[in-house]
Amino acid sequence: MKKIAVIGSTGSVGTQTLDVALQHPDQFEIVGLAAGSNIDLFMEQVTRFRPKKVSIGNKELADKIKSDLPAGIELYYGEEGLVEIAAGTDAEIVVTAIVGSRGLPSTLAAISEGKTIGLANKETLVTAGHLVTELARKKGVSLIPVDSEHSAIFQCLNGENIKEVEQITLTASGGSFRDLTREQLREVTVEDALKHPNWSMGAKITIDSATMVNKGLEVIEAHWLFGLPYEQIEVLLHPESIIHSFVEYRDGSVIAQLGTPDMRIPIQYALSYPSRLKSTSKRLSLAEVGKLHFREMDYERFPCLRLAYECGKIGGTAPTVYNAANEIAVARFLNREIPFLQIENVIESVLSKHVSVSNPDLETIQFTDQWAREIAASL
Amino acid sequence: MKKIAVIGSTGSVGTQTLDVALQHPDQFEIVGLAAGSNIDLFMEQVTRFRPKKVSIGNKELADKIKSDLPAGIELYYGEEGLVEIAAGTDAEIVVTAIVGSRGLPSTLAAISEGKTIGLANKETLVTAGHLVTELARKKGVSLIPVDSEHSAIFQCLNGENIKEVEQITLTASGGSFRDLTREQLREVTVEDALKHPNWSMGAKITIDSATMVNKGLEVIEAHWLFGLPYEQIEVLLHPESIIHSFVEYRDGSVIAQLGTPDMRIPIQYALSYPSRLKSTSKRLSLAEVGKLHFREMDYERFPCLRLAYECGKIGGTAPTVYNAANEIAVARFLNREIPFLQIENVIESVLSKHVSVSNPDLETIQFTDQWAREIAASL
Repeated sequence: MKKIAVIGSTGSVGTQTLDVALQHPDQFEIVGLAAGSNIDLFMEQVTRFRPKKVSIGNKELADKIKSDLPAGIELYYGEEGLVEIAAGTDAEIVVTAIVGSRGLPSTLAAISEGKTIGLANKETLVTAGHLVTELARKKGVSLIPVDSEHSAIFQCLNGENIKEVEQITLTASGGSFRDLTREQLREVTVEDALKHPNWSMGAKITIDSATMVNKGLEVIEAHWLFGLPYEQIEVLLHPESIIHSFVEYRDGSVIAQLGTPDMRIPIQYALSYPSRLKSTSKRLSLAEVGKLHFREMDYERFPCLRLAYECGKIGGTAPTVYNAANEIAVARFLNREIPFLQIENVIESVLSKHVSVSNPDLETIQFTDQWAREIAASL
Repeated sequence: MKKIAVIGSTGSVGTQTLDVALQHPDQFEIVGLAAGSNIDLFMEQVTRFRPKKVSIGNKELADKIKSDLPAGIELYYGEEGLVEIAAGTDAEIVVTAIVGSRGLPSTLAAISEGKTIGLANKETLVTAGHLVTELARKKGVSLIPVDSEHSAIFQCLNGENIKEVEQITLTASGGSFRDLTREQLREVTVEDALKHPNWSMGAKITIDSATMVNKGLEVIEAHWLFGLPYEQIEVLLHPESIIHSFVEYRDGSVIAQLGTPDMRIPIQYALSYPSRLKSTSKRLSLAEVGKLHFREMDYERFPCLRLAYECGKIGGTAPTVYNAANEIAVARFLNREIPFLQIENVIESVLSKHVSVSNPDLETIQFTDQWAREIAASL
């Protein structure tokens, strides 16, 4: 029985993590849950899984649900609550399914306690990859990716030697707007953007997928997860999202991981690693799929991806600025404050005002993050 | 420095094995070479690699080349010569690149001496899979596949648990005639058949590829190599031969091995396993390839593949009959004695006259093989 805590249980990855746990009640036990503000769903989850400790977004929400909580469950809230769920239970694995840079302190806390991380919060590595990987190495903690692309690379490296890798390639569906011209992109609405062709995801990631910021964050994440220089990380357009990513070895052999676009497969793999458990997900039939398409990435068409590589190579606080500026820009787009193409301009403008600090500590990262958000909001 | 002996050095896999050895003179040393009748090429190889022992098809050929042989090289010939090269050198790995069931005794001899087998002679496992795998297990010998499909499966199993495999799928290009109807197949010539679209191979394998007998032999080989029942072995049409084969695990995850169609990649992998060495083979660019196609296998269109599954499931001497009847039928087709579609009829007729003997010993296999050849020649 593997004990699991989930940070961000009501989001897309969080709910699917609980789905997986529910399918294997003999394998997994949920011992901690943390969510933001979706208290209806959260209370359902708490009632069903009866974890020992739970946490909700703030004191107000905590007060609201306190009386409905089953007896014996400890209730926390806010930033401290996240840390308590991540580090204060007897979970062996903590799934960091929270979106955004808020996930950082709780992830570091879980690593400090020696817990395996099921890493779904990509901002953790993007903003503090040097701190997180160093702490994980020191504590002997495994960072197991949950994201389908990184899970694919992780699986393709099974039984192999990372020194024999020539290149890793992250595939990108191209998002909702992959067939539109730059001209057409000027006019797209929030509603258009939220129709992602392959994956069922949260709103922020769907937008990030259309701007290719999501892929940019994944490139930076891959750099830290697999310890590879950016020159060895490629992105390839693959509209069907069937090949989730692949590794090319120096002998010319390519190992790829494929599957139906169902996040529960990589989530389950992170939970069950190194074993694989039966899954109820739809099986992949390549005969049924019939064709797979591939296209070189166009960095003019997707300038946010080019920016991500630039920030990654600069390092230091540059990726933090990239990520924070994007979070604000996406929020403003979803609020209908700015048009779609303004997202890339906001990121680029904030970056142009920033001088990167190398090897930043947590305080510097948080300060830079805050600074970038304020600038991004004011543009 | 890994010492290598090559059985069948002048054939397609043999020459490519020596190519690979030549590219890594600091890694591989050729200590034994055996060939059939191509003495010009054989003498070139012997002069270049200076192995300790060599063998040629028969006494006549041996007498012919004896005087031209560099000093200090021991010369053998015939069946005994094959065994001497396979088992009588200090090679760590023996590449069995000979075509047909003649490869069996030398392979068994090499295993008895504890040598790793780079298995390119698929008839070895087809006719005597139970004997070969049992002896290999007893002697602690690894059978490393050289065939691109089996090498792909072997690589996709790296670091994984065979018990968690749901299914393996061998891909098939469909051969030279994949787009012809059964009606059109009646008219095809030897010249038509030898134009294989993707791989550069010997004549027999090219015909076997067009009849799908090659894939049938591979299915039986896979059964023995990976210890899986036939129900877990599938074949999928994939004209581009880019995905060389793949493994589906029980969690729904599929691991595939891809590459340009270049036999030197799997050959080199078998030689360098478990490491991977640099290769001069053309790198795979999926963006350049653009599209991959997949189609369900049609067992009506390719009855030889259906027959292979049937023989495999019957077991015993049935696969020996399948293989021997095919060897004769292909030879007769290449000699313009019978039309292309007659190949499947010959195999089916010989099989219909055979009652399988289960768990046959080597003598029974050889007797059955001879019997099947005679019948196939007489039809």
